Amino acid sequence: VSVGSRGRSSAPAELLDSAAGGDRVSLARLLSLAERGGDVAREVDRLVFPRAAGAYTVGMTGSPGAGKSTLTDCLIRASRDRDVGRVAVLAVDPSSPLSGGALLGDRVRMQDHALDEGVFIRSMASRGQLGGLSLAVPLAVRVLDAVGVPLVFVETVGVGQIEVDVAGATDTTVVVVTPGWGDAVQAAKAGLLEVADIFVVNKADRAGTREAELDLRRMLDMSPREGWDPPVLPTVASRGEGVGELWDAIGRHREYLEETGLGAERRGARLEREMRLIFVRMLEERAESLSASPEWQRVLEEVRSHRLEPYQAALMLAEDLGR
Amino acid sequence: VSVGSRGRSSAPAELLDSAAGGDRVSLARLLSLAERGGDVAREVDRLVFPRAAGAYTVGMTGSPGAGKSTLTDCLIRASRDRDVGRVAVLAVDPSSPLSGGALLGDRVRMQDHALDEGVFIRSMASRGQLGGLSLAVPLAVRVLDAVGVPLVFVETVGVGQIEVDVAGATDTTVVVVTPGWGDAVQAAKAGLLEVADIFVVNKADRAGTREAELDLRRMLDMSPREGWDPPVLPTVASRGEGVGELWDAIGRHREYLEETGLGAERRGARLEREMRLIFVRMLEERAESLSASPEWQRVLEEVRSHRLEPYQAALMLAEDLGR
Repeated sequence: VSVGSRGRSSAPAELLDSAAGGDRVSLARLLSLAERGGDVAREVDRLVFPRAAGAYTVGMTGSPGAGKSTLTDCLIRASRDRDVGRVAVLAVDPSSPLSGGALLGDRVRMQDHALDEGVFIRSMASRGQLGGLSLAVPLAVRVLDAVGVPLVFVETVGVGQIEVDVAGATDTTVVVVTPGWGDAVQAAKAGLLEVADIFVVNKADRAGTREAELDLRRMLDMSPREGWDPPVLPTVASRGEGVGELWDAIGRHREYLEETGLGAERRGARLEREMRLIFVRMLEERAESLSASPEWQRVLEEVRSHRLEPYQAALMLAEDLGR
Repeated sequence: VSVGSRGRSSAPAELLDSAAGGDRVSLARLLSLAERGGDVAREVDRLVFPRAAGAYTVGMTGSPGAGKSTLTDCLIRASRDRDVGRVAVLAVDPSSPLSGGALLGDRVRMQDHALDEGVFIRSMASRGQLGGLSLAVPLAVRVLDAVGVPLVFVETVGVGQIEVDVAGATDTTVVVVTPGWGDAVQAAKAGLLEVADIFVVNKADRAGTREAELDLRRMLDMSPREGWDPPVLPTVASRGEGVGELWDAIGRHREYLEETGLGAERRGARLEREMRLIFVRMLEERAESLSASPEWQRVLEEVRSHRLEPYQAALMLAEDLGR
């Protein structure tokens, strides 16, 4: 597939052209730039943002061991069978220091689809840069979108706050539980009832499946939402059972979002959230850099020596920030 | 004591003069202004800050029911017996919507010292204004300091994050546990090992006192600190037992802080923390007010219609903020 990266230009604009032409290595390098954050990520966004507005995103979340990866693989196969075009997976792991497909799990999964040029799998870890994964993931989605990938799965490892935020910031969010996971209260505690558009009880050949379904149903009925009522679907991902039904449910939710206009509304809200997040981070960075400045030290010395009160000092510093 | 508040001026400067002259109602009203936050609190701080640098603060924290109030009352009596001057208690309860001594518990305690003009007890609750209790409490301490109170106890109801922060931001922090409280692991979990200058095992006439002391000792030895080694003292506050030893330990810690210069260093660090907190809150308030502006809506519309990427939009808004 790849002839290595030697000789390729690393300028984002050229990488984007090659990636749009189907070059996977250029796409991988473009995603690395996007993930790096800072000025280079901004340049990437400037290029891809106007080209990206079409890709549909499906979030896959749930507790570790629920079978999310296997289920996502089934959905990839389903999408390839149905000829919807290229498909990508962003496997998000906030706890891992590694990015870029270096994880063993991804190598195994890559082999699964190694002969399929239409499937792109990428792991993303936390890099600690401006906004972290909450900003890196939507930018990565836009990169994929801009090079012509119409369907992106965003899969998380666990159900931490970041993971729920990231998987919840998609068009359709699928929450995967197992009969052995315990009751639906755990899902509720993790904030999953609010973000789930579809619930899946995976490993549904095990005892307790019916109880898990009923528990989820009961929890959902206790806090009913207007409009879309999240279905609860049993699957056995390891044997591909129930995957067709899940695929259809995603399609129905997509239609619902389009018909009601809710999809566009949510995308707008997500963009505003992203803008707000970047904005607050920028202010925090400015404040951080200011607190290392001679001006900060000067004002602080005035406060320490009781010549200036903290309110007045902060006000002076805040005014300085604007200059 | 009081002739009511009618006829008194409510201007901070005049209240401060009356309060400094010993008028308790003026002092109470000044503290209410300080607690209210906003411009009026800033005016109060402008007046009291240059006058305040001397009051010694003792934080009293620990789980509910450990007997902190009773122990604080014992320390008040000890300070009055030793003639150290006027003394005040700020009873901090982040979970209560009530401030200003309206709590039943304080009424009962006020009666205890009702005939003692040298004791001032004040409850403080969360008002949700800029910085909350983390800013209101140090300002209240400065008010008391400025009117000539040399010793202030800051007593919290429980061991939540705010309460540990507030009680920890004092010269000497006393952490009160009971034999029944369980092991020292609970104290460690609440972050109390780090802030404690003195540990008290109260209700030391109960079984398990020795074990609690040993547990705390062991936990402290596992993370040794340079310099001051926190003593672990048994007390029976209800009978006044061990209070003299606690009073002496506070005195020894105070001497340690003065001799090493650590006291002044910590006060400086607390003032910087306060300034930084006010500063960040100011930026957040500006960001909040900006997001309701026509400019924010205009930029957001550009982003939603995919003409401007979120990074660029946030940058434009951040630049606007400075103007």
